[in-house]
This record gives sequence, C-alpha cells and structure tokens, in this order.
Amino acid sequence: MTKYVYFFGDGHAEGQADMRNLLGGKGANLAEMVNMGIPVPPGFTITTEVCTLYYNNDKKWPEKLEEQVKEAITKVEKAMGKKFGDPENPLLFSVRSGARVSMPGMMDTVLNLGLTDKTLAGLLKHNERFAYDSYRRFIQMYGDVVRGVDHDLFEAAIEKAKQEAGVHYDSELSPETLKELVEIYKGIYKDATGEDFPQDPWIQLKGAINAVFDSWNTERAIKYRQLNNIPGDWGTAVNVQTMVYGNLNDVSGTGVAFTRNPSTGENHFYGEYLMRAQGEDVVAGIRTPHKIDDLKEEMPEIYKELEDIYHKLEQHYRDMQDIEFTIEDGKLYMLQTRSGKRTAAAAVRIAIEMVEEGLIDEKTAVLRVSPAQLDQLLHPMMDPNYAEEPIAKGLPASPGAAVGRVVFTAQDAEEWAQKGEKVILVRNETSPEDIGGMDAAQGILTARGGMTSHAAVVARGMGKCCVSGSSDVKVDFANKLFRAGDTVVKEGEWISLNGTTGEVFLGQAPLIEPQVTGNFAKLMELADKFRQMGIRTNADTPEDAKRAREFGAEGIGLCRTEHMFFKGNRIISVRKMILADDEAERRAALDELLPYQKGDFVELFKAMKGLPVTIRLLDPPLHEFVPHTEEDQAQMAKEMGRSLDEVKAKVQSLEEFNPMLGHRGCRLAITYPEIYEMQTQAIMEAACELNKEGYDIEPEIMIPLIGDVRELLYIKEKVEKVAKDVLSNHGVSFEYKIGTMIEVPRAAITADEIAKEADFFSFGTNDMTQMTYGFSRDDAGNFIKDYMNKHILESDVFATLDQTGVGYLVKLAVEKGKSTNPDIKLGICGEHGGDPATVEFCHDVGLTYVSCSPFRVPIARLAAAQAAVKKPR
Amino acid sequence: MTKYVYFFGDGHAEGQADMRNLLGGKGANLAEMVNMGIPVPPGFTITTEVCTLYYNNDKKWPEKLEEQVKEAITKVEKAMGKKFGDPENPLLFSVRSGARVSMPGMMDTVLNLGLTDKTLAGLLKHNERFAYDSYRRFIQMYGDVVRGVDHDLFEAAIEKAKQEAGVHYDSELSPETLKELVEIYKGIYKDATGEDFPQDPWIQLKGAINAVFDSWNTERAIKYRQLNNIPGDWGTAVNVQTMVYGNLNDVSGTGVAFTRNPSTGENHFYGEYLMRAQGEDVVAGIRTPHKIDDLKEEMPEIYKELEDIYHKLEQHYRDMQDIEFTIEDGKLYMLQTRSGKRTAAAAVRIAIEMVEEGLIDEKTAVLRVSPAQLDQLLHPMMDPNYAEEPIAKGLPASPGAAVGRVVFTAQDAEEWAQKGEKVILVRNETSPEDIGGMDAAQGILTARGGMTSHAAVVARGMGKCCVSGSSDVKVDFANKLFRAGDTVVKEGEWISLNGTTGEVFLGQAPLIEPQVTGNFAKLMELADKFRQMGIRTNADTPEDAKRAREFGAEGIGLCRTEHMFFKGNRIISVRKMILADDEAERRAALDELLPYQKGDFVELFKAMKGLPVTIRLLDPPLHEFVPHTEEDQAQMAKEMGRSLDEVKAKVQSLEEFNPMLGHRGCRLAITYPEIYEMQTQAIMEAACELNKEGYDIEPEIMIPLIGDVRELLYIKEKVEKVAKDVLSNHGVSFEYKIGTMIEVPRAAITADEIAKEADFFSFGTNDMTQMTYGFSRDDAGNFIKDYMNKHILESDVFATLDQTGVGYLVKLAVEKGKSTNPDIKLGICGEHGGDPATVEFCHDVGLTYVSCSPFRVPIARLAAAQAAVKKPR
Repeated sequence: MTKYVYFFGDGHAEGQADMRNLLGGKGANLAEMVNMGIPVPPGFTITTEVCTLYYNNDKKWPEKLEEQVKEAITKVEKAMGKKFGDPENPLLFSVRSGARVSMPGMMDTVLNLGLTDKTLAGLLKHNERFAYDSYRRFIQMYGDVVRGVDHDLFEAAIEKAKQEAGVHYDSELSPETLKELVEIYKGIYKDATGEDFPQDPWIQLKGAINAVFDSWNTERAIKYRQLNNIPGDWGTAVNVQTMVYGNLNDVSGTGVAFTRNPSTGENHFYGEYLMRAQGEDVVAGIRTPHKIDDLKEEMPEIYKELEDIYHKLEQHYRDMQDIEFTIEDGKLYMLQTRSGKRTAAAAVRIAIEMVEEGLIDEKTAVLRVSPAQLDQLLHPMMDPNYAEEPIAKGLPASPGAAVGRVVFTAQDAEEWAQKGEKVILVRNETSPEDIGGMDAAQGILTARGGMTSHAAVVARGMGKCCVSGSSDVKVDFANKLFRAGDTVVKEGEWISLNGTTGEVFLGQAPLIEPQVTGNFAKLMELADKFRQMGIRTNADTPEDAKRAREFGAEGIGLCRTEHMFFKGNRIISVRKMILADDEAERRAALDELLPYQKGDFVELFKAMKGLPVTIRLLDPPLHEFVPHTEEDQAQMAKEMGRSLDEVKAKVQSLEEFNPMLGHRGCRLAITYPEIYEMQTQAIMEAACELNKEGYDIEPEIMIPLIGDVRELLYIKEKVEKVAKDVLSNHGVSFEYKIGTMIEVPRAAITADEIAKEADFFSFGTNDMTQMTYGFSRDDAGNFIKDYMNKHILESDVFATLDQTGVGYLVKLAVEKGKSTNPDIKLGICGEHGGDPATVEFCHDVGLTYVSCSPFRVPIARLAAAQAAVKKPR
Repeated sequence: MTKYVYFFGDGHAEGQADMRNLLGGKGANLAEMVNMGIPVPPGFTITTEVCTLYYNNDKKWPEKLEEQVKEAITKVEKAMGKKFGDPENPLLFSVRSGARVSMPGMMDTVLNLGLTDKTLAGLLKHNERFAYDSYRRFIQMYGDVVRGVDHDLFEAAIEKAKQEAGVHYDSELSPETLKELVEIYKGIYKDATGEDFPQDPWIQLKGAINAVFDSWNTERAIKYRQLNNIPGDWGTAVNVQTMVYGNLNDVSGTGVAFTRNPSTGENHFYGEYLMRAQGEDVVAGIRTPHKIDDLKEEMPEIYKELEDIYHKLEQHYRDMQDIEFTIEDGKLYMLQTRSGKRTAAAAVRIAIEMVEEGLIDEKTAVLRVSPAQLDQLLHPMMDPNYAEEPIAKGLPASPGAAVGRVVFTAQDAEEWAQKGEKVILVRNETSPEDIGGMDAAQGILTARGGMTSHAAVVARGMGKCCVSGSSDVKVDFANKLFRAGDTVVKEGEWISLNGTTGEVFLGQAPLIEPQVTGNFAKLMELADKFRQMGIRTNADTPEDAKRAREFGAEGIGLCRTEHMFFKGNRIISVRKMILADDEAERRAALDELLPYQKGDFVELFKAMKGLPVTIRLLDPPLHEFVPHTEEDQAQMAKEMGRSLDEVKAKVQSLEEFNPMLGHRGCRLAITYPEIYEMQTQAIMEAACELNKEGYDIEPEIMIPLIGDVRELLYIKEKVEKVAKDVLSNHGVSFEYKIGTMIEVPRAAITADEIAKEADFFSFGTNDMTQMTYGFSRDDAGNFIKDYMNKHILESDVFATLDQTGVGYLVKLAVEKGKSTNPDIKLGICGEHGGDPATVEFCHDVGLTYVSCSPFRVPIARLAAAQAAVKKPR
C-alpha cells in the first residue's frame, strides 16, 4: 500500500530532511527537527504525490488516504492527550502547504481548524477572549481560503466593531464584542456560500486539505512558478499540525528569524517577533514587530533556548536557516526551519565565512551561491557619499539601488514597464497579487511592513532593491501621490531608492559601477580554482573589453564589427560601399573604412593586452545600414553624385521579406568578397603594428552564418591571401586563427566537414535557436506569452538554451567537429553564454570556453565552477 | 606505373565499353567497336584522370604521359603504315574531347592535325584541292581552338575569296585559291598570335590535347554542366584518332544517324549525310544535309554495311544508338557510337517496344526513361485539329508546343524571361553561346540546320519545343523582325510553334491538356508494378484533385486550406476573424466561414472518391489575409463598424520582421484555438455527410509547424474534442487521423516524442530547407546565383532536396518516429516530392508515400519505380 501520510511528533518522525521531494520542504524539516529532539507540535504530512494524484483524478482523494489521515490523527491525539472534535479538550490543527521549494506567500493556510460551536467550550475554559478571537479568525480564514468568501466582508465587520468600541487594535476588542463578531462572521459565511459554517471537524479538515491542493494552481502560484522555473507537476504537500497559540496570553507570542542576516550575511541572529499574535500577523506585515534582540530582555530563558536551537540547526544543516517559532504560555515550539533566502551579498558572505569557520568545504561554498543571483551584485549601486538629503527613510529590506518613476499599482508598473519606462512601485504593503508589478519595477517602496514582510522577502528573492516600512511615506492612492514630510511626489515623478541604507531620494540619483572585491572576489577565486572552461566576453569596444577584464574575462569571444560601422562619420563610407554600382566603387568606399577599422582593432587589442580576441566579420544584412529617412538619402545622393530616386531604388532593392534568413553573414562575402578582405586587412595590420611594439596578439577571425563547408573554403582562401600579404608586407610573422560560427542547423549537421577547415567553432545559439525552432526573435514576443500561459514553453528559449532541440545540434557539432579536428577550439557566444544552466550544459558537452556580456562574466565563472564541481571532466 | 593512354585499332583495343568513367563515353565506345570487329580508324584515348591531374598540377602534363602518347603514336603508325610528320605519307589525327557523358557542342575539336608545309606534300599527291582545303581548315581550327584566334577573321577571308571567285560554296573554290587562302590564313594566325603557324606536328598535338583539357572549363561548358548536374571533377578524356576524309573525293562523305527516330522513337533508321564533307559540316548545320534513306540509292553497298553495323550495335548495346560515320574513298569508317539522346516520347516508345521485341526486360525499361524528361509529355500540346494556316513550316526538331513573343538574341531571351515574359527564340542557327537563351525560351525556331543541328539536339535534350531549318523564315536582325512569305513578324509579337509537325503560327494558339495514354500508359503500368511507395498529390481544388487522379495519384498528401480563404466573398469573413477584438467576435466570423469550408471539403472528398485526403489546417501568418489597400481597409471598417484608423492599426500590428519565422502554423492555434476548431468541424461534418451517403472517407487532419510535442498535445486535444462532438452529433462513426508536418528542425530532432502523439508525419521540406540552411526562399534569389556561379551550390536546394543537411533531419525523424510509433505513416509534401532524386531518397529512407503537384505525379511514379528497381526494400 502506498504511504500517503507521514506522522511526526512525540520525539520521533516517519520522515526526514532528505525526503523533501515527497514531503515538501516544510514537512521534511519538521520531521528532521523532531528527530533532532527539537520541540515541534505533533502532526503529519500528506505527500506531494497525493497532490498530483488529486489533479490527475478529477480532484478526488486516492483510495486509502482517508484511512491513513485518520490513523495519523489518532497518533497526534495520543501524543497530545487531546481529541480532535472533543468539546472538553479539543485538538486543533493548522493546515499548511509545503512544496519542494519554498514559495513564500503563494500558498494558503488555515489555522485553528477543528473549532466548532461545541469545541469552542474547551477553549473558553482557558480564556474567553482568546477563544472567541480564535474562532472568528478561523471562520474568516476558512471562509476566505476554503470557500472563497471575500476577505473584505470580514474586515469591514471587524472595522465596524472597532469603531463602535472606539478602539484601535483588534487585540483591544472585548470578549463580548468578539463573541458577537463570531455570529456576524457566520452570517457572512452563510450569505456568501448559502451554507451554514461547517460544524463537523472532519469536513473542515477535508475542505482545508483540498484548499491547499487547489492553491497549487491559482494564477499567482502559477505565475510564481513561471518566474522561478518550478515545474507544475511537482505538487505541494500538506502539513496538518497541532495548533499552538502565540495569542493565548501575555507570555505567548510568535516570531520569524534567520540564523544570520539575510540581507548582509552578517553572522548575527536576526529576526522579529510579536507577543500575543499568531504567526501570520508577523509575515503579513500588519503590525510592525520587535527586533529579536528585544526578546533577550523580555523572555531571557526562551531567548536562550531559541539560541541553542538555532546553533544546533545551523550546525546540523550547515547553512543559514530561516525559522518560525511560537511561544505558547511560556513554552517554545518550532514551527519551521528551512534554508533562508538571502541576497546575493549575503549568500557570498555566508558561503565564504562558513568556509572560514570550517562549517563547509570550498566546493560546497561554490555550490552555495546561485550564479544568477550574482547579477544583483553587478548592478549599479548608490554612491555611499551621495550628499543629498533623503526625503524619507525606511528599512533596508533588499540592497542595491533603483531609480525610476513613481507608480502606485502593480498593474501600472507592468504597463509602464512594457512601454519602456523605469518605475518604482510604491505601496502601503504588497501582496501576492502584486508579483507581476514588482517584477516589472526597478525597485519597491512600502509604507508598512518589516524586514520579513511580503515586499521584503519577495524583493530579496528577485534581487530587487526594496525599502520597506517607511512610515515617513503617506500614500494617497486616490490622488496618485505620496507625501514624505513636506514633499509631495506625484505619479510619474522620479525617485531613487537606496536599498542598502533604506533611504529614499527625490529625483534621479547618480549610480556607481559595481566591483568584484572582498568576499565576492574570494568567491570568484574559488570558482576559478574549480572551473574547467575558459570565460570570455562579448565586447565591441575598448570600454566593454576593459570592464570585462576587470570582471575576469580571459579573452573576447565575440567582437561584432558591425557596431563599429555606425561610429562617427564612417556610416557615410559604409553607405557608399553598399550603394556602390560596381566592385571598383565598392572597393573605393572600403578603402575609406579601412583606417577606421584598423584603429578600432588597435584599441581593442590594446585593451585586451594580448588575451585572445575573436573578431566576427560583417554579419547583418546591408539594409540595416542604409539611410532610411529622405534627408539621409538626399545626403547620400549628394555624396555619391546620384539622383535621390536612384538612392531610393537601391535602398528599396535591399529590402527583404525575411532578413534573418536573407543576404547576410558569409553570404555577403560570397557576393562581395572585398568586404571581408578589407576587414581582414584591418585586423592583420592592427595586429602587425602592435606586435612590432612588443604585444603578442594572435587574432582569431570568425566567419558567420556558415552552412556549407564550401562557403568557408571560398572565403577562407580570400581571407588567408590577405592575411599572408599583410604579414609579408610588414615582414613579420605570428599565428592567427580562422574559424566559424556554428549557428545554421546545417552547419551543425555537417560540422565534420566544416571542422576540417576551421581552427575553432563558436556556437551562435541566438540564431541557432531561431532556426531550430523557426522562431523569429523579433516576432516571437507576439506568441511566446501564449506559449508560457498555456504551459507549452516553460522558459524563454532565447534566455536559456533549449537543451533538447538546440542542444542536440550543439552536441552533434561538437562530436562531429572533434571527429575530424580533435584540436578544434569550441566556444559559445550567443546570449545564452551568460545563462547558468546553459553554462553547465556547455561544460558537460565539452566546450573550451563560454563568452558572454561583460556583466555576466562573474556569473559564468561561478556557473562553470559549479558545473565542474558537480561533474568534473 | 599509371596507365594514361589506351590504344585502339587494328582489330583490338585496350579499353572497352564499361570503362566510360576512365576513357569517356566516346573513347570507351570506340574501343568497344574495335573489339566487335567494326571498322574504326586507329587511335588512342588519354584518360579523364589526366584532365584532373592537369588541373591539379597547374596545367602541366603528368610525368610519363608524353612517353605513353609517343608509344601509342608508334602503334597507330604501325597499324596505318603511315608516319606522323612523314612528308611522303603523313599520318594525320583528329583530336576530340570525350567526357563520361556526352556534352554536345560544348567541347572543342581539332581535325587534320599533323599537317605542315612539309607533310602537305603527301596529301598533294592524292588531290591538290583536298590537300589545300584540309590545310586551310586545320589552320583555322587550330588557330581558333588552340590559340583563340577570332574565327570571323578566317571566315571573312574565305568570304572575300568566294566573292572574288564569284562562287557560292566553299567546295567551288579552285585549288589555287585554296592555296592562296592557306597563306592568308597563316598570316592571320601570325598577326593574332605573334608567332608563325607551328610546323612541328608534336607541338601541334600537345597544343590540341591541352586545348581539349582547357575546353572542359570554358564558361559554356561550366554552364552546360550546371544545367545538367555534371560534377566538374569528372574531367574529359582526349581521343586522338587517325583522320579519315569525308571530303577526299566524290565517293567520300560523312553522316550522323540514329538507330531509331530520336524524336518519335519509331523503329526506323534515321539520319543525315553529306558527300564531300567533314563531320563537323553536318552537325554545325551549315549546309542542309540529305536524309540517310537517300544513301541507299547513292551508295547501296555502303548503306548495307551501315545497316548491318547499326543492327549489330543496337543488339550489342541493347539501346538506341547515335552513330557518326565517314566514307573515305568508298570505304566506311565508324567514328562514334553512343546511346542516342531522345525526346521523352521517343524514350517511352523505345523502352516499351524494346521490351516487346525481347531486347530488354521490364526493369530495364523502367530505368531507361529519365523521370525528369517525362515533364515534356505533361506539357500542353497543340491541338492536332487546330485549323489556322501556318505562316511557315520547318523540321519537327523537338516535339511539343510553344507559345511566346518573338526575340532574336539569346541575351534578349534571358532578359525578357527574367521579367516574366514568355518568349520564342528565333535564330538563323544556334550555337553553344545561345544555351542560356534557349533554356529561358518557351521554344526555338531556326531558319537553317537539320534534325541533328545544334538547335535540334540541344532542344530535344532540354525537352523544349523546336522547329529547325525553316527556310520560309528570313530573319532581319538589324530591324528585329522576320519575314515568312508576306507576313512580317516583329520582335515582341506572339507566335506559336508546333514542334511535332514543324508548323509555325502567328498569334497565341490554344493548347490542349496532356493525357497518359498509349506507350506512356504502358510505362506507367510497369512503374506501378515495381514501385513500393505510394504517390499522392498536393491539391487544393476538386479540379486539381481530378487531374491528379487521372495522372495516377492515390490520394491527396497536402490540401492547403488557406487557398480556400481567398475564394469569393469569404475573404471578408476571414478578415473579420483576423480583425476581431475578442474571442466572441472571432468565433462569429469563423461561424460565417464554416459552411464555405465544409462545402470545399465536400467537393474535394467527392473528387477523390474515398482516397485518403490530408488536410493541413491554417498555416500562413494572418498578415497575408488582411486588407492592404486603403479601399479594402475602409470596406472592412464599414463592415465591422470600426474607424479606418482602428483597422489600419490592427493591420499594422500584424506586420512581422520575419514572417516566415513568425506567428503562423500551429502557433496561430495556440493563440486562437477556435480557428482550428472551426476547420476541424468543417472537415468532420463534410466527411459525416458524405459517409452517410455511402462514401468511405477517413480524413487526415494535419497540424503544421510543430516544433515541440506540447504544441501538438495542446492542439490535438481541441481537435479531437471537436471531431468526437461532430461524430456524436451526427450519430456516425469512422476513423480519422491526426498528424503533423515535420518541417521545423526541432520537430525532426524530437520526432520520437512527437510520434507518440501523431498518426502520421508529413515532411514539409520547403520550410525545412529554409530553416536548415537559414535561407529565406523569397530572398535567396538575391544571392543563390552567386552561389551557383562560384560553385558553392550545385543545384537549387529548393528544387532538389539537400540530402546531406535537410536529408539528415528527414532520416533522423524517420528513425526517431518509428522508434516510438512503428506504424506511423510517413510522407513528404514539399515541392521536392516531385523531384526524381528526392523521390529516390524518400524510397531509400523508407517513406510511405510522396506527394507532389498533379503534373509531377507520373514523374514521381516512375522515379519511385526506378528507386525500387535499384534498391528494393
């Protein structure tokens, strides 16, 4: 019989930490804590498999599940000495979701389950206020989560009660008022559902379990999974656990904490708690909680116990933990432990310090930081010496800097961002519905909520700058503005956030470039120690080249010469070349370009100080360079002594139906070999001049868009002739390489033939993705969103390499290429080269190097190291 | 030591017929005839390998060649009792090219080689006129062919001599005049080359042999090879053969003949001869020769001998032979035999009749006809009952009919044709330089030349209608017109040719459709007996379907539903569907289309009478259907109650950068599933209605542009639901199939996954070629010509499948598809489906059927049969 339910509590558990896939993260860790002897309220976990069965079986429970749940309840009853549904001493449950990976705020929870008009009696014996408060909370949560009753109806009722009572906080309401509220809530429930509030605890429990399963496929959960690449068929587990009450009395409370600072990584216990509160109150950011340090004074024994537990947990898990606890009537219970989410800065610091503390080894440290997350450290930061006065201050909830125009709704954030606007989303507090807008914004500013509020947690996960709980900020949604002291900031005005200090500035603050120093540099050293692939950069300018070298690039994997064609006045010569009537005229225009190109290459070679530089010869269709405005066309007509009509006709003749598949790349050089001849001359002359000065440059000339070895043969002959002529004219001698892009599917298929004639392959996975899928990158935006919404594609194939299809061709080309040219150098220079999953793939298939944009170089270094640690060559 | 030279003559030869690759066709067959005891002037063949060595070795002879040539000359001298360079009794040679396959008129020839001022004496002893005539011919030929002296300079000199002598034909010139001409020709040679005419026979021979090698790479030879797919590295052999003289005296002559009629296939000896002439005179079409039948009266013994030889040759080679002979002083010599080129009609008739005669078996007959050539029989013909009077008559040189506008130069023919004009090329006679223009023209009309003239031979080879030697036609090139009796026909006027009767008509004659009858039908029966693949057709209309069935199609492999969208008024509904603002509006427009689509399918199913019909759901991007003119846009705005600006904006929003790779095919149905739902409903309802009437239709629904199995799953679910609903609503039940196009490279790579969900694959090799090469079919015209000129591509990859690249993906998909779905049906529906080489490939990789346009169905049937005969499954 399949085991669907795993009990924990009473000093032993059926599960353990490594059963995360089956029990979810929360369930596995609850079991582990029980096994470690840590106080955890007893309960049981329904496996993630049940969730999948539930969806595959028309939302019905599998056979035997009910039986197993009931058995588990009996065990809990025994452990607690209470009975589920017993009016004397009722056992109450919390019902929570728990997927393999944490999805904060995404899933629904029901607390106080098992309360009925009858079992209420058992609670009333303890404390009347607490009993009614628990019941009204339960009705609201159950109504909202299980039956979809509008949350606001309950909120309005309690608001009204508070006004009538003349009090400010829920906790100030009298037991009598709460008792009345319970009846009002039941009425709301009945009005909305047409049914009485269920008085059978078992019915309640079944409803809550199903609600957790259902919450797996809400729109916001699906969106979160898409953003985080979590497969839909993983499912969620359900944790049913004995309730403990942080709201029972004055020596009760609840808190969340991290064993180290999740924002900076500092090794200091860090968290917040609220007395007289249930867990959700802290996370939801409704009341601003106390710092965990305060607990040391308020309840020193509890604090000591908590400290022992967190040390024990960190030693056990050898990672920073995110914990939840509840104090019930002076007794501490742990409700959750998990690896804590952290900013990139914190991840790096914790990994390095844990190595230094001897807690983990170097390989583990390398694996501990997500390469994609490093991106946060590579974004511009606010200058710490920026002298302006902030208009407001809040909590430094997620570090970095953000500059953008103020919007007040998530929807506006998404819409403005789609139009290319940079925006800062300003809210009182954020909720899961705001995810899309938070993702679209540069940064987030909230007026309420702490360091563990929704806004703070989600922003840190996204690596997005966030200032939370800035009580200086008073938002006026109706008039689309906020006030901060005397300053009024309207929708569309620019503000700047410093997420590292919590400061808010008016206007656009200047930002400074990131650097690889301190712990970050130490991590990069570790990465370089383990990685087995080279890391190059895609750079067209000396500035980019210099930055990439600072980030650790070991060469240029792709220099796109066409970008140089637009610089300064040279576009005129380019256009003359394109509009030429014959070869002689074309050569004359190319002669004008030659010194510019040579100068470009001299600067680039100098910036790279002898590191390898791969230069791709002209690639885009000529139509991209022609004058499109009548004014520019008239200028060219004058320059070339033509009529405007002639120029227009020529421009028109270069238009193509599908330029992506048109006259571009090496096809240009088949028609006009003189273009590549000029570029080769410029490259070789630049290298000659510098090598005479003592540089040691070995240029790598790359021919794009090869699909047939005969294209390469034709062009290679011309390129080699020019190269040899330049060397002999300069009377010098040095090595140079001639290689090809592998981007056309046919090139991958015939790579054995091509490799015989190529010193290197560089995979152009952008174009290869376009051709392998038949997706135009420029047009796919129109339909890819439907693909994502309908679960046909899980990630953007232009960001993460499609390993099944495009990857097949890459592997094929590697195998075929090596079969005829075992020494061939193999690289990748598509945008994918900076994507961690793709870097791992490149390591696994045996590439020599990956090349990516300068800012992604550290990411690629770390990803390459992780790949090598996981599966050394 | 490599043997470079093969001797033949004196009753034995070193070569034989099956050494064609080494000795070329001419050389191999000369050797074979010698071995058969047929009289052949002795000589030797320099192998094709030498030609390749010559080009690879900077146009130098390989070592030992000279030695071997000299040895062979010695053997010939011994056989003839003459000596090369002997003034008393000189041995003279002809030097001719001879490639593996015949390239008529493409290669250069030198006759009378070995004549010098000294050896002339030996000829003068026989006949003074003949001696000087031979010498002046030799100087002209050698000057022209070996040294590039302008042919016209010699022609002008002899023209002047004839005028001065007051004679009309060369043969009327006196020996004295010819003697003077020899000196004048030597002067022309010296003026042009700066050297005296060579007086060393060995120098002459080396020069002529090199000239033959050089002629292999002239522009016209390269062009011919391109047109006929002959690889450049095959090279040509050189045949050096003892001269025999058709121009020696009145009992000398020369002729060319075919063992059967090459135009109709009739089993009747067919040819032409000229007395007092050398071979080139007949072929070049300068004098109009006599019919071979006349020889029976003029030289009965020679005719009898010739008749015996031709029967012997046909029995030996078991094929129709094309022979050349010379009669020297009453003695017959054979100079060549080879398989005769023939029209498609002749090829079919000869193949069928040879089976009936017991000369060949059925499989050989199937292999004897080139499938591509059948195209000739499938072109429209002139109605035999056409009642108009012809304006001129000529020889029925190449059958069929042609209607076009008159042009007078090959260049004009090419230029006009490029602009889309249909042209008839009218020339006095054609020459190898005209090849391009002949290819571009609908048909060819010449005023001079016989049935074996250049025009006739080349036109038959091309399957192009030709009327030759029409002496009614007087061409006035200066005024760009020709006269035929009283009729004046100017450039650009329409004429019609009947190549089967030799008639020329003014204006555009109506043409009739071809039919598969008689020998053609017999050949098709044979083909069907052997072929192992099904043959379907690509048809969108009942008319096309009916024609294809008459041609033998066994089903429809591709019905493109989009063509139906343009018929009548339905484009309005299509546009409403596209311009709709939401799904409801879109569904309303689709509802309007439904009855039309259903009607289309009813007609198509009826026309195919229960044969399988594969219907491809909507494929092209929506932008192809939108109104592009302001008028049409205004109409749509009115129809839909929109503003013109709104319609314009919507139209613009559908524009794409690369529509080929854009929102089309199944991607449309991912966004708008209702489109495919409507089409499925129409298909299934049509089938329901007809099946209720007793038809037995099993529709095959084809989803285009699948790249990922999840696309297919998503769409298949919707299609199946509609199909089941229709069946249940109609209360009927029949089988239907759902399959996919395999055209996106990724689909081929993941075919194992896709095949699990597909009943069939149909290879869309048009799109697959575009994506595998990265060539846009619409734009490739701009650069493919450079690829052909520069030998980077040998054939148009959109006409003949690229078996290396695209073929790899087809094979991969077949293997992967069968691995998960062994019963999967596999077809091809790209344009390539009618290309014989591609059909053979499809047979070899194991496809179930090929589908092609109706007119190519017989070609595909024959090609499939040939593939099965060559390599049965």
